[in-house]
Amino acid sequence: MNKLAVVALGGNALLRGTQDGTIEEQEQNTKDTLENLIYLIKEGYSLVISHGNGPQVGNILMRNDAGFENYQIPQMPLDVCVADSQGGIGYMIERMLRNALVDHHMVKDVVTIVTQVVVSKDDPAFKNPTKRVGRSYTKEQADELNKTKGWIFKGDTKVKDGYRRVVPSPEPIEVFNAKSIETLARQGNIVIAVGGGGIPVYYDEKNYVRTLDAVIDKDNASSLLATIIHADEFYILTDVPYIYLDYNKPTQRIAEFLSVADAKKYMAEGQFAEGSMGPKIKAAIRFVENGGSKSVITEATKLEDRKYGSKISMEYDK
Amino acid sequence: MNKLAVVALGGNALLRGTQDGTIEEQEQNTKDTLENLIYLIKEGYSLVISHGNGPQVGNILMRNDAGFENYQIPQMPLDVCVADSQGGIGYMIERMLRNALVDHHMVKDVVTIVTQVVVSKDDPAFKNPTKRVGRSYTKEQADELNKTKGWIFKGDTKVKDGYRRVVPSPEPIEVFNAKSIETLARQGNIVIAVGGGGIPVYYDEKNYVRTLDAVIDKDNASSLLATIIHADEFYILTDVPYIYLDYNKPTQRIAEFLSVADAKKYMAEGQFAEGSMGPKIKAAIRFVENGGSKSVITEATKLEDRKYGSKISMEYDK
Repeated sequence: MNKLAVVALGGNALLRGTQDGTIEEQEQNTKDTLENLIYLIKEGYSLVISHGNGPQVGNILMRNDAGFENYQIPQMPLDVCVADSQGGIGYMIERMLRNALVDHHMVKDVVTIVTQVVVSKDDPAFKNPTKRVGRSYTKEQADELNKTKGWIFKGDTKVKDGYRRVVPSPEPIEVFNAKSIETLARQGNIVIAVGGGGIPVYYDEKNYVRTLDAVIDKDNASSLLATIIHADEFYILTDVPYIYLDYNKPTQRIAEFLSVADAKKYMAEGQFAEGSMGPKIKAAIRFVENGGSKSVITEATKLEDRKYGSKISMEYDK
Repeated sequence: MNKLAVVALGGNALLRGTQDGTIEEQEQNTKDTLENLIYLIKEGYSLVISHGNGPQVGNILMRNDAGFENYQIPQMPLDVCVADSQGGIGYMIERMLRNALVDHHMVKDVVTIVTQVVVSKDDPAFKNPTKRVGRSYTKEQADELNKTKGWIFKGDTKVKDGYRRVVPSPEPIEVFNAKSIETLARQGNIVIAVGGGGIPVYYDEKNYVRTLDAVIDKDNASSLLATIIHADEFYILTDVPYIYLDYNKPTQRIAEFLSVADAKKYMAEGQFAEGSMGPKIKAAIRFVENGGSKSVITEATKLEDRKYGSKISMEYDK
């Protein structure tokens, strides 16, 4: 049986921070990234691809504000905006991947699945929302939105005197359609799923699926999906080729092979930044602890020569 | 083997013309509609559900305009907006259907697939765009957009002196992921696909999948999908319980059982309005001519008692 890998595309894979976000930019970045996935496909991997949606869902939320301001179009809640972004981004990745496959004379179907991910209403994250979403508001606007909609705000890290809405980032518990995703991937299709970490939902006491305002960490949700579908390997593609120890210090060095115990020790020592490498390493560790054979953290361009990238396994045998 | 049916939900199934388009309205309408699909599921049908997206993609296009106007957010092209709408609407239908299944103590998974549909770049529709999309513009705005973006405009049927963009409505030729849709549906999942008639794409001379600005008739694309996946029956749900002859005349009468020959004869006589019942009956006929056993046109609420609704078959045996 082919090896099954889940590959989580980082934010930069689709849109770089310095870009405006036009469709031409997004398509070009996506094309460049996918070109590197061809190496995995040529090695015979079955693939499930997940992706971030930060800038895209941010734009969708701002367009919702503007549509109401200018044309009184009812605003859609965050869950529907995340679902919209899964449709738009998933379609873009699927189309660019189909064309990359044509370039390499490979015949495979690509399927994009709109994915809900279950969280717990009792997750402690709901007591402390931390994830900034949408646009920057003034203090007056933020106070008004807090009163009318109950939104919570924190200072904008980029706009002086600006405030941004924060929502909780709860732990993913269950990924809808996991069985279908696994079936399709093992039948030779490339499946795109859990975009943006999935649309967060919860079960109420009667087992109905209910909505809530939250976002789920993309690498965390992808790790859970990889576990559920019994993937062999889990790739987190980011903008550095390796995990580093003493990052940005004179003693900076590459951590190429890490056992789970090592990775946990370094994490406890505070080696990995909370907002960036930390969650990725947590997601990578979790996949291996739950039975996966290997997690890899690297840049997309480093997939060609498999000697690059940091690998986390249970007991590392170099 | 269970019978496989494709059910195309009409515009009113999700949002009525008199409503504002809030998520609460859309969810309630969707819930009411889906309650009626339970009858088909209880009878043992495997189901693929398609849906319209007119008001939703219209709102997404207007939000794109407003987002650019107020915050200079780059506008997404029509194909990405259709993909966004498939994500948002598909998610809403999937969630409401999961809850309807809970109500009826039924265990089934529901899978939403973002669907591209191939058209021909040489379709005659590209010479005569007829389908109005997006918001109303003034003459000056329309002239400017025609100059800068090459958009074509026709008079707005609702806003005096208004102009709306028109795009072509080409014939669907191929539905991506049809094999996966059939596999998942026959395995007992309910599949949501070809939302809004699908995201229109075409193959260029090098076999790359390219984008274009168009919309595909939802019933037409659903009929093609039903044929490709070898569905037994094709349901078009609309806002009348039957096909009528001499509609709105003193001689108005129900056409309950129609052979394909009858339906074609009535169509040639001009019995069915071009903008409303005409395309539905064409799609229904095409499914039967391509090997389907029966097309049904009716209201969602008429699915309970299967004696209602108009049925089109090759040779009708009442």
